[in-house]
Amino acid sequence: MFERKARKMINVDPLQTGGKLTEDARKALIEWGDGYSVCDYCLTGRIEEIKNPPVYEFVHEKLPKFIGCDVVRLTTGAREGIFAVMNSLAKKDALVVLDSNAHYSSYLAAERAKLKIVEVPKTDYPEYKILSEKYAEVIENVKSEIVLALVTYPDGNYGNLPDVKRIAKICKNYNIPLLVNAAYSIGRMPVSLKEIGADFIVGSGHKSMASCGPIGVLGMSSEWENIVLRRSEKFKNKEVEMLGCAARGAPLVTLIASFPHVVERVKRWDEEVAKAREFSRRMEEIGFVQLGEKPHNHDLMAFHAEKLYEMSKKAKKGRFFLYQELSKRGIHGIKPGLTRFFKVSTYGLTWDEVYYVAGAFSEIVGNGIN
Amino acid sequence: MFERKARKMINVDPLQTGGKLTEDARKALIEWGDGYSVCDYCLTGRIEEIKNPPVYEFVHEKLPKFIGCDVVRLTTGAREGIFAVMNSLAKKDALVVLDSNAHYSSYLAAERAKLKIVEVPKTDYPEYKILSEKYAEVIENVKSEIVLALVTYPDGNYGNLPDVKRIAKICKNYNIPLLVNAAYSIGRMPVSLKEIGADFIVGSGHKSMASCGPIGVLGMSSEWENIVLRRSEKFKNKEVEMLGCAARGAPLVTLIASFPHVVERVKRWDEEVAKAREFSRRMEEIGFVQLGEKPHNHDLMAFHAEKLYEMSKKAKKGRFFLYQELSKRGIHGIKPGLTRFFKVSTYGLTWDEVYYVAGAFSEIVGNGIN
Repeated sequence: MFERKARKMINVDPLQTGGKLTEDARKALIEWGDGYSVCDYCLTGRIEEIKNPPVYEFVHEKLPKFIGCDVVRLTTGAREGIFAVMNSLAKKDALVVLDSNAHYSSYLAAERAKLKIVEVPKTDYPEYKILSEKYAEVIENVKSEIVLALVTYPDGNYGNLPDVKRIAKICKNYNIPLLVNAAYSIGRMPVSLKEIGADFIVGSGHKSMASCGPIGVLGMSSEWENIVLRRSEKFKNKEVEMLGCAARGAPLVTLIASFPHVVERVKRWDEEVAKAREFSRRMEEIGFVQLGEKPHNHDLMAFHAEKLYEMSKKAKKGRFFLYQELSKRGIHGIKPGLTRFFKVSTYGLTWDEVYYVAGAFSEIVGNGIN
Repeated sequence: MFERKARKMINVDPLQTGGKLTEDARKALIEWGDGYSVCDYCLTGRIEEIKNPPVYEFVHEKLPKFIGCDVVRLTTGAREGIFAVMNSLAKKDALVVLDSNAHYSSYLAAERAKLKIVEVPKTDYPEYKILSEKYAEVIENVKSEIVLALVTYPDGNYGNLPDVKRIAKICKNYNIPLLVNAAYSIGRMPVSLKEIGADFIVGSGHKSMASCGPIGVLGMSSEWENIVLRRSEKFKNKEVEMLGCAARGAPLVTLIASFPHVVERVKRWDEEVAKAREFSRRMEEIGFVQLGEKPHNHDLMAFHAEKLYEMSKKAKKGRFFLYQELSKRGIHGIKPGLTRFFKVSTYGLTWDEVYYVAGAFSEIVGNGIN
């Protein structure tokens, strides 16, 4: 079998820290691993109505409460939820407003829905912030119809958390629905669509809800239900944007199995932020610059490490030296070849692991490794 | 944990018989269960270029050879592959031609892509066949532009295998691209897009390739690559219809792990057909009518069982008696409440299991169970 060496290492890849399965999810995976297993107990042809495993309760009660939505659906990922909304709202020659820190898949979703894109700019190095008032400026300047605005909360490059409540107010003033991409927040930190005051929210099971990919959640306020979850003309119990049932199989069961743990861990968010800040402090002591908001409010952090870049020019392994040095120390998750700019997440690490990873960087720089 | 009782039973649900994991896939599932695990080894931002696990070789060499395609991509299921093609080809006021045995999700994919639908009719009870010449008739009668024709091979209601080669020739004559929905054939029986002479083919990992859902394959001839796999304007290495990477996570690794076994089992297709025919013969001996093609050419079979329906009227449990009687005998997969019409698949059952399941029906009818 193909081995996954990283499984036994400390993984600091932001893509991975929130997606690690709980023990309950791992057991569920074995029990429900076969193909379409969940459909064994489908009576109505709608996955979210299955009572065992308890999909119905999860989709109609637990999840809406957890993320503060009137209506929730399961998707095969956050990006697929974004596309479903965009495709439902798409009109000829219309456009969407995206923050310029948006995930690449938000751009692709718009392209796929044949929508034009206008970007909300970010501030310069080193913070790269999305300022809420820029939404108003951009919207004012656009001549075509805007069918949707999107804000990434936080973004996957710097872990910045824009002021979503203010952005929601601005969009409401212009009567433009707002989608919050919470792929890196739902399941890590407390998030509520109702509190934010936006129209749509998407989350990612594999990124932040301790689930086997691909799976995501799409939440919305009830006014959008008839548009985004419109039914097929011929098959009256099937939703067009979901192509019937979107998430099917074991990933869904892992999402449900991990959920009680996810609900609990979200309550410990303050400590995760504290860990991230301590890590950032130690990294800056080495001489690296933490990019994005400071003090930082999320476990996803980007660093500018000029020192490592200088070292890579002289290292035997060249730009791969950092990956190698970290691997030697049992640390995975910095993309091979990166030295000058890289991302790290401390989510779910113990304090000792946080110190250990920061210590490893310090050691690598101090050693002047070759 | 949520138990899946059906896991220990003989499962004759056509949705499940081809999706049962191999032992290798089960091991892979544990090793790669975490969230986005496969992305640990991504260097280029394109999932199909990952070398470990061997996704690159699988997508660019093994799969194209196996299903006779120039180009293959991974999707989150057959339906998502169908939608990607339809959305790429969609034009205002255009339509798609669907066989009237098409899966509901083919209709939904067309609706989602804002395409109109025209149906190729089927023959009457009991065969419900799609005759190739009907494609020509339908195409002749349509006034609007047809951007795609689709044929379901076999369909999921009766397990009928239309003459796809002839249908492909007809569509070629009219210069209409043809998509073959092979969700119930790729991974069960030999299928080659090149031999068929069509343009697109989709398969399902969870339905027919011994994989954890949701995962599918989309194959095409090279002339369509630039259209269906067009790149994003801003992110030049990302494919719009895939939203970047479509299938991500453990289902992909199970697909790869099961693949050598799937290649082998396809060679034993004749025996699977023999089992299905023997099962059908025994069911007809009881007095049931096998619907669809006869002699049957696929493991997916539908039956008309008037006797069971009559019994259900008098049974204590009413229309749920059949489900209960089969459950008692360790057999799962007939939807609870069905008696008059139901589907069965004998795929992967041992001969003894085939006799046992037919015997159970015989016993239930013979007993005049109450």
